[in-house]
Amino acid sequence: MIYLDHAATTKPDPEVTKTMLPFLGEQFLNPSAFYQPAVRVRVKIDDARREIADFIHADPRAIFFTSGGTEADNWALRIAVTAMAGKGRHIISSPVEHPAVRNSLQYLRKLGFEISLAEINREGLVDVDRLKDMIREDTILISVMHANNEIGTIEPIEEIGKLAADRGILFHTDAVQTFGHIPIDLRKCHIDLLSASAHKLYGPKGMGLLYVRPGLDGEKLLYGGGQERGMRAGTENVPGILGFARAVRLAEERMDQDSVREMKLRDAFEKKLLEEIPGVRINGCRQSRLPGIASVTFPEFDAETLLVLLDQKGICASAGSACSAGARTPSHVLAACGIPTEESRRTLRFSLGRETKEEDLNYTVKVLRSIIVGE
Amino acid sequence: MIYLDHAATTKPDPEVTKTMLPFLGEQFLNPSAFYQPAVRVRVKIDDARREIADFIHADPRAIFFTSGGTEADNWALRIAVTAMAGKGRHIISSPVEHPAVRNSLQYLRKLGFEISLAEINREGLVDVDRLKDMIREDTILISVMHANNEIGTIEPIEEIGKLAADRGILFHTDAVQTFGHIPIDLRKCHIDLLSASAHKLYGPKGMGLLYVRPGLDGEKLLYGGGQERGMRAGTENVPGILGFARAVRLAEERMDQDSVREMKLRDAFEKKLLEEIPGVRINGCRQSRLPGIASVTFPEFDAETLLVLLDQKGICASAGSACSAGARTPSHVLAACGIPTEESRRTLRFSLGRETKEEDLNYTVKVLRSIIVGE
Repeated sequence: MIYLDHAATTKPDPEVTKTMLPFLGEQFLNPSAFYQPAVRVRVKIDDARREIADFIHADPRAIFFTSGGTEADNWALRIAVTAMAGKGRHIISSPVEHPAVRNSLQYLRKLGFEISLAEINREGLVDVDRLKDMIREDTILISVMHANNEIGTIEPIEEIGKLAADRGILFHTDAVQTFGHIPIDLRKCHIDLLSASAHKLYGPKGMGLLYVRPGLDGEKLLYGGGQERGMRAGTENVPGILGFARAVRLAEERMDQDSVREMKLRDAFEKKLLEEIPGVRINGCRQSRLPGIASVTFPEFDAETLLVLLDQKGICASAGSACSAGARTPSHVLAACGIPTEESRRTLRFSLGRETKEEDLNYTVKVLRSIIVGE
Repeated sequence: MIYLDHAATTKPDPEVTKTMLPFLGEQFLNPSAFYQPAVRVRVKIDDARREIADFIHADPRAIFFTSGGTEADNWALRIAVTAMAGKGRHIISSPVEHPAVRNSLQYLRKLGFEISLAEINREGLVDVDRLKDMIREDTILISVMHANNEIGTIEPIEEIGKLAADRGILFHTDAVQTFGHIPIDLRKCHIDLLSASAHKLYGPKGMGLLYVRPGLDGEKLLYGGGQERGMRAGTENVPGILGFARAVRLAEERMDQDSVREMKLRDAFEKKLLEEIPGVRINGCRQSRLPGIASVTFPEFDAETLLVLLDQKGICASAGSACSAGARTPSHVLAACGIPTEESRRTLRFSLGRETKEEDLNYTVKVLRSIIVGE
């Protein structure tokens, strides 16, 4: 199997699984319990929270573990609208958000919130100047993702965060695609709410986090026991939390070299595609893009047909995000970039990872060329 | 370690962990993806859902995976109040519910819902006749747990379900303590919403389910991708789901023998305590009680002191539920049973499981006797 869908999910690093195993075995205890063996588990969770907080230079008390990125996104928006209930009901977001934000906003719209979408250019980059002009008296939140999951474009979150802070508006960023892949430093960047997911950085599925800036009070997500400082009740997913922390420590060690390596591989892959298959186009922002993502529009063949043919050769890629793999609706991301439906239907996403090898990519180019050019 | 806190959490069965491992490794794929290796993972999830549905004689489409019992409880109440929004705002529950229900109801009260708590007797049993009298025109939901987590009392959910159905009221039951421990048959019992958690039946933490009776339309829990039939977005916790299903299959095989065995051990343990330590009292319902739970009020010593001394001997027990282990507030369950605070402060919960041995319990009695009687 040639796996080129790392943006959909990644294989847990063997070190992550190794870290989790004792907590699926002898150290299975409930961290809320009173006895020492359970207290030792609680201490491990505290350590994990601190390690993850350190990674983004945050206060550990600002890290709340969730069941994933989607939960974190949903919760972030709920916190924002309740914390700012007195100020207004206007939210600014981007047209390229993940469905976890996009559909949550859709729900808020039904509840009477007004959602404005920032303008983006053809590369998917939010226009900060025009975003600035959209801010109103009753704007309470800006939610713009750190990097897009389909085209990899990295948004100017430092600028947006500064703008939000200056105007007393909350800023949420969905960092599911970037956490552990490119640096995030909360000392340098004003972020009120940040969502991340473990399984996108070689950690376990069913695990994520929401960073909530200290001092920001908002609605609890789940009511029940006192876990997660009373904000997100439920017995902690101990193996998940510790696996997440291990994945973060690995990312800390490997991020720089991984991203250079993936970018080189990706750039070479794109170059080859452009050379070997006439009419190929690369989407996303050239200057500011996640190292491992290549969004490629092909001159012919539906994405689905291409995916089936690639699948037959053992190559795993995707059309847009995994979440909408089953749906045949064209990508809202590509549409927002001004790419006609007809072209977006011919677009595939290849996302590289730690295990991706040059020969796998060369083989993929060869297979694509033989499908499309026929040689 | 003598582990007598199975109601707090259980150690995943080695078969469960074995089932999970491949999905933390080579079969890590995102079940929403298009290619065959991912489709095979999706099929496994479908199988797991069907197996779990079969276990309680439910339609597989009625099973929604969640991150745990607390999430399922929170969601159940949210579904109920939105589905019945037109009918009223009155909810009947019991005073012995788990905090996941109790605190969710507290939140609903703030939103303007009226919550009435059914009367219970000293054994924690809901009085169904009096509950019947509490039903009003605007009653939309009855939420009564299947069995209590502190004293083990099994509530008459068949009767309550029938009553609710007859009056066109929704019925939710928190089955976190019973799922996989005592039979649940949805053909025989009218239940609209049922919550369960995997880690209480030798499955993984961070995994649960909500059964939603087909035809009952309610609010989504998380917005995002199309997972869980669009009701609970987020990449599936594949190892968690498959581990849960494995735990359910094991429970199916073992439930009858396990419960007889645990009940015998528990009854002998209680008998010994009563014989060896003058002034001991057993709480909960004698006729209708979970096989593995013993709630014991001791003649002297605070629960915390006893727990520390037991802990020093390697014995893990709890005072009330794990979720409130840190809190020093006396148990709301015992208080609702009419047990004075002074006595509830001297009450411990011992909960037995598959690995509990007779000699462990005998040793526990010996340790308790030497602490309390001093011989």
